[in-house]
Amino acid sequence: MSPQVLKARKGEETRAQILEAAVQQASEAGFESLTIGTLAERTGLSKSGLFAHFGSRTDLQIAALDESSRRFTEAVFLPALKVPRGLKRLRALFGNWIVWPERAKLRGSCPMQAASAEYDDQPGPMRVAVAERQRHLARELAKAVQLAVDSGELRAGTDAGQFVFEMFGLVLACYHTQRLLGDAGARARALAGFERLVDANRATAGKPASRPAAARR
Amino acid sequence: MSPQVLKARKGEETRAQILEAAVQQASEAGFESLTIGTLAERTGLSKSGLFAHFGSRTDLQIAALDESSRRFTEAVFLPALKVPRGLKRLRALFGNWIVWPERAKLRGSCPMQAASAEYDDQPGPMRVAVAERQRHLARELAKAVQLAVDSGELRAGTDAGQFVFEMFGLVLACYHTQRLLGDAGARARALAGFERLVDANRATAGKPASRPAAARR
Repeated sequence: MSPQVLKARKGEETRAQILEAAVQQASEAGFESLTIGTLAERTGLSKSGLFAHFGSRTDLQIAALDESSRRFTEAVFLPALKVPRGLKRLRALFGNWIVWPERAKLRGSCPMQAASAEYDDQPGPMRVAVAERQRHLARELAKAVQLAVDSGELRAGTDAGQFVFEMFGLVLACYHTQRLLGDAGARARALAGFERLVDANRATAGKPASRPAAARR
Repeated sequence: MSPQVLKARKGEETRAQILEAAVQQASEAGFESLTIGTLAERTGLSKSGLFAHFGSRTDLQIAALDESSRRFTEAVFLPALKVPRGLKRLRALFGNWIVWPERAKLRGSCPMQAASAEYDDQPGPMRVAVAERQRHLARELAKAVQLAVDSGELRAGTDAGQFVFEMFGLVLACYHTQRLLGDAGARARALAGFERLVDANRATAGKPASRPAAARR
């Protein structure tokens, strides 16, 4: 391997190591806690080394947001794509979503959710980036709802945007009541809420199909 | 009026002025942004004057959380208590909840919600205080749901904790999608979600009663 290739590979590894530390920190203490200084401390790298990878604090924050997004997709969407499209896939998406921070080995809460709370009233590039990713997520979820309409499981005329809004609410309530109810209690409530939402939009209203054991209460 | 009384009254006014500034700041930038220094700047008072009222940063943060709680009660619960108990009051609570930051003239988002996101992974007195207030709110809301069961509007056996969890989710989704959909769109979705939640728990299932105009979509 040429010295240039080795150097490039080493650079990539360092960058990945910095981003891993940044996502962990954002999960534990939010994106506003990310500075070149705190990350230098956390990774054991020099500040100038960090600057070589991320020219500014904002660059670092945006890169950490992108890496969080990538890991969200990996933990929530990719496994759901192996499940048949329609209600099964929608249910898999929801189930993956409420446990993803844990599955991605994050020690704190969902970084996307942290970013959302931090920047909703703070104009600037992070607010723009967060809103863009939230819009993208809403569109992808709406497509999954539409597939369950197309499969005939949800009734024609189901408002996909409304469905996604309510799914989102259940996930947020789950994250926020975990400290109150503990993980198992919060997740059982979220799953029960999701099944109610599905039942309200079923093609054959009033005839709830069999539910996965986890959602029975 | 005696000089002592005058002095005490002046002290109360200054304290109220500091707390007003603290709640505004928490609404805009979170409780972690509250320091004796930033508040001295915001109120034009001296740091030593602020220390005379709040002995430490944590005291100030807890006092600001209590003041946010008081204003939440004033904006959400007090007006709802004038509405007949049962479904009408529950609907009033929900309607007041989704607009309360605006009604309380806060320039940012709900401070209770900000605190919840900030401290869920940060052990310490603020986390304890936030969780305590969240538990209290959940209990008060569960009582309101139970009154709607007692009035015969919601079916016997309605799981009040589950109902409150789903209400909470709709409020969180509303706050978080306002930037995406704008105020009117997010609120219409939240109200539609609430009416669906009510319908799913109605005593006479399948016979939705008349809805307030705001909830029609």
